[in-house]
This record gives sequence, structure tokens and C-alpha cells, in this order.
Amino acid sequence: MLKWYEKNANNNDVVISSRVRLARNLETYHFPSKLTKEIASRIVHEVEDIVLKASSSHYFERMDMEALSPLDKVAMVERHVVSPNFVQSSIPTGLILSEDESLSIMINEEDHLRIQSISNGFNLEEALQNANHIDDLLEEKITYAYDERMGYLTACPTNVGTGLRASYMIHVPALETTGKLQFILEAIGKFGLTVRGIYGEGSQGRGSVFQISNQVTLGHSEEEIIENLTSVTNQIVEQERSLRKKLLSEKRMQFEDAVYRSYGALTYARILSSNEAMTLLSDMKLGYELGILNFEHTEPINIYGLMTCIQPANLQKEMKRELKIEERDMARATFIRQNLPKIKT
Amino acid sequence: MLKWYEKNANNNDVVISSRVRLARNLETYHFPSKLTKEIASRIVHEVEDIVLKASSSHYFERMDMEALSPLDKVAMVERHVVSPNFVQSSIPTGLILSEDESLSIMINEEDHLRIQSISNGFNLEEALQNANHIDDLLEEKITYAYDERMGYLTACPTNVGTGLRASYMIHVPALETTGKLQFILEAIGKFGLTVRGIYGEGSQGRGSVFQISNQVTLGHSEEEIIENLTSVTNQIVEQERSLRKKLLSEKRMQFEDAVYRSYGALTYARILSSNEAMTLLSDMKLGYELGILNFEHTEPINIYGLMTCIQPANLQKEMKRELKIEERDMARATFIRQNLPKIKT
Repeated sequence: MLKWYEKNANNNDVVISSRVRLARNLETYHFPSKLTKEIASRIVHEVEDIVLKASSSHYFERMDMEALSPLDKVAMVERHVVSPNFVQSSIPTGLILSEDESLSIMINEEDHLRIQSISNGFNLEEALQNANHIDDLLEEKITYAYDERMGYLTACPTNVGTGLRASYMIHVPALETTGKLQFILEAIGKFGLTVRGIYGEGSQGRGSVFQISNQVTLGHSEEEIIENLTSVTNQIVEQERSLRKKLLSEKRMQFEDAVYRSYGALTYARILSSNEAMTLLSDMKLGYELGILNFEHTEPINIYGLMTCIQPANLQKEMKRELKIEERDMARATFIRQNLPKIKT
Repeated sequence: MLKWYEKNANNNDVVISSRVRLARNLETYHFPSKLTKEIASRIVHEVEDIVLKASSSHYFERMDMEALSPLDKVAMVERHVVSPNFVQSSIPTGLILSEDESLSIMINEEDHLRIQSISNGFNLEEALQNANHIDDLLEEKITYAYDERMGYLTACPTNVGTGLRASYMIHVPALETTGKLQFILEAIGKFGLTVRGIYGEGSQGRGSVFQISNQVTLGHSEEEIIENLTSVTNQIVEQERSLRKKLLSEKRMQFEDAVYRSYGALTYARILSSNEAMTLLSDMKLGYELGILNFEHTEPINIYGLMTCIQPANLQKEMKRELKIEERDMARATFIRQNLPKIKT
């Protein structure tokens, strides 16, 4: 079965994916940071039992976190299935994953439960529906830590309330190249939103891919949070699209030259760092979205899928062995060469 | 009929071509700088008559210099058929060309006659034979300005004697990249030799292509001049070859990466300046000679031919119209894309 990021998507010229995360805690236990290993382990089994026995349209699988190699864990972080903190936990943790990895439940991350749902493209409604489905399914059997006035109670105050963090992963090469992204980043805090790089807090935007999400959940309804985030993202999307058109009409040849050269480097390079590959794939995605690069495939081309597969840990998983940095850069070039969709000439 | 530089050549991994030029003057006339237009014109017709009526294995054609456009003239300079000074002459000049452009006779350049012969690859003997053939053919009908003690008399003292300038066009990317070329350039004067860029005195080496030639002809026999030049060139060729092998064995992956990326840029760029194109073609030639790039063609690949065709004036001749610089850079990228030999993938 294809993972969600390997599937082709429409309506993802700027918004690559939409993500919802719900933070929940069980009423009868301390927050994870205060748990004994024994109790932590009991919570893991309790939640696993509920989800795996529940009747759901999704097929869920229990991951044995202790059996996973460090490489497997980092690969899952790169795929946004789990958070970096989660794989470094000192107490027993659990992970339940849907087959396409679009749905995941982290047990004993910062909160007892982190329900996560990702959808391809600009589609937060679907992501929220799927997260709520799991939330409902759990709530039938579990009593959540909930306060009438405050809402869902969480380990970190920023998550108290709806426990909802919603985010869009956006590809904004035109805004970044022209320096306009900086202004957006500065203005966005006023809307209670934050922008981070593709790999979470503090990480740089690579390949012009960024995540935009709400910062605080207290005092707002789910609908308000999502409406606010979507409205601001919509404005960014429109700015990015009109800037792309402007650049294309004003400097078409330079634009085509840059896009084709990047495609040429992806096609022929023998050594590719992950940073360079991300930049080249970003150019390729831009060229594809603008109709400069025409591929032999008639279905939509999934460039974000390639971006994911060439991250260090996932690449090593593809190669089925651990690789030194220099070996990785060679393996990455080979992998890209073998998996790059061909353009019409 | 193919021009000499369009033909495939063997033994040209380092030495692209071998060239001989003989300076000759007619006894009964002043040197060109002192000629009236009338006399200059008479000399042109006299020489044209002799060559075109002579029985030769070569088919010669008379070029009407006054009828040629400035673009045609610059294109001939780029093809090394004539010298830059020749096309700027203020007195009547004449040009006789063999069909493949390997043989040319400039009439009223600095001397009355400049007989030039180019051969593909490392082959100065053939070039000299062909030049001597024309020289003999002319000497049957013309009395040259000749002094028993001094030899052939010429307008510039550096040509007095044999009137011979012999040169090799060499492609030395490994020597240039490693900075070793600089030492060779400094040492070479002691052997009475000089190194210049691909487009004559003062011009930079572009695409790592240089011309090495003798500086003085007085006091040396033809054989000595050629033996000296060939012996020094042989040493340069061996140094270049062993340096290529060394670089390849020590940094094979980086080498392949660079060569393939250059080929990728040639294949996909939409804008190419002539400087960049020369550099990329130089990398491609190096990759080809070292067996890194394997082409679909089974015959030898002629990269120097491409280097010639993409020079500004020749490119405009190919496009059959005058082009502004930006138009040229686009036309150059298109021309290269259409004419680049395909590699096996």
C-alpha cells in the first residue's frame, strides 16, 4: 500500500499537505513526565487494545517501539509520523499507525495521546475528520482529562483548550527567492500563527518548504483555529501564485533556464547532498506547477514524495543499509536518477 | 562537404589540431603596408590566377572579400581561416580557400602571402606537407623575396627565415585546473615557444584550449622548428594525460559528478554564454576522452566542432540572422541541445 505522501495529489501547487494533531490525556493518570515505567507501559497497552479492537474503516498497526532501530525511528521523524521528542523518550511509549501513515497515535509523548492526521494537498477538513474519528473512537472507552471551563487539559499550557494544532505544509519558492517571505514571517505572529521549517521548530526551511500552524489553542474553538489558519494560508497561497506568474511573465527565459538546469543536475549529478537535492527538487516542483516542465507521465507528479525518500534515514532504509555521509550523497544521486520522472523533450 | 573541424579525428585527446603557416612575399613589390590599392589589387588577381589554374588534388575557391559581410568575416576569424588583422585591412585583399577550409591563402595580410594549413589531431607533418604543396605550386610561377643568407624576407623580422609558424591547438583542462599550466607557460619561452588562448595573441584560454607555437623562425630550419615544438608539446601532452589519470584515480566520483553535471547543463540549459558553453564543452570533452561519458554514437565524437559552431559569429551564421547578445545566448543553448551527442544511460 502506498504511503499518503507517495500518492498523487491535486490542488497541491503550494500547499503540500494539511495536518491536524490532537493532544489528549487520560483522567486517572499523571502526565507522562511524572509516570513510572510500569504505569506508562499500562497506558500503552490500554490504548493499543482500544484502538486495535475498535471497528474502524482504517487498518491500524501497532509498532513495537523498543524493537525499532535508531535508523527506523529517525526515518519516521523524517516522514513526520512521530516527533523528535517521542523517539527520545525515557519511559515506555507506543505508536499506532494506519497503513498509509496518514494517521498516527503517539502514546506517552508529552501528553498521553497525540492523535495525528495528515492529508495530501490543501485539505484540512479531511485531516480533522480523520483525527476526530480516532478521538471519538477513544472517547468511547476512555475518560479524558477535561475541564468544563478550560477544555482538554495538557502537559504544556499552550495546548490546553481544544488540544488542537493544525498546520499546512507549504512550498513557497517565489516568496522565498524574492525575500517577501521574511515580511510574512514577521507579520504572522499577530494572527497567533507560527512558521517553521520542514523539520519542526528551529529547523530551517529547506527546498522552500515551510509549516504554518496555530500557536495557542486556549480560548478558541476548533472552527476558529482552522478558519484563522486557513484564511491566512489562503492569502499566502494567493501571494505565492501571483508572484510565480509575475516572475514567469517578466523573466520567462531566466526562469525556464533555472528550472531546466536544476532538472539537469538531478538527472546527471553523481553526488547530491540532501540540502542541494531539496533545492533542486524545489525548482523542479515549481517548474512542474508552472507548466514549464512537461513530464511523460500523464498522472500528477509527486515531487514531495521524492523529497521525503531522499532524507538521510529514509534513503538508508531504501538502500537497506547504513551509509556514511559520502556514501549517502552518492546513493541519493543514484536513487534520484532512478526515480526521477522523465520529461518530454 | 564537411569542414576539417567537423570531421571526426583520432589521436586528439589533447592535441585538437596542428597548424602550419608560411609567410611569403613577391620579389617585385613593396610589402603590403606600402602598397597602393591598385598594386595590391594586381597582386590579388595574380595569385588567384595561379592557384585557381594550377592542377592540385585540392579544390580551391576564391572568396570575394569585398562581398563578404562583417559577420561572415568574423565567423572566418573564429574558424581560424583568416587572422583578425586580415579582415580589417585597408587595401584590397584576397582569400583562397580549400573546400574543407583546411587550406587557405591570405593575400595582402602583413605579407603578400600567408599560406595556412590545418590538420585534425596531432599531425603537423600532414599540415606541413599540404602547406608545402601550395608553396611549391606558387613558386613555379612566382619569384619570392628571398635572401641566400637570411632566407624568406618578411614584413616583420620575427618571420624572416623559414617564414614558418607551426602551432598545436591543445586542450589541457587537468593542467589548467591544477594550476600547473602556469609553470609551463613561464618555462616555455626558453624554448623559443609561446602559448596563447584559442583566439590568438592576448586572448584568454577558453574551455582550457590553448595554442602553442614557435616565436622566431630566423636561424632555424623547418625541421628544427617542428621538432622543437613537437617535442615540447609531447611533454605537455604526457603531463596532461598522466594528470588526468591521477585525478581520475584519486577523485573518481567527484570527477564523474563534475563531468555529468556539465553534460546535464549542456542538455538542459536555456541560456548559455559562449564562455560558459566553452567550459561545459571542455568538461564534456574531458569526460569523453577518459571514458566517463559513453555516447550512443560509435564513431569518435567531435566536440571541438561544436566549440567552433557556438562562437558568436558562427552561431549567427547557423541561425541565418544577426542576433543580440541575449538572443545569442538562447540560440546557443538551443543549438547545443539539438546537436549534442546523446550519452548512453
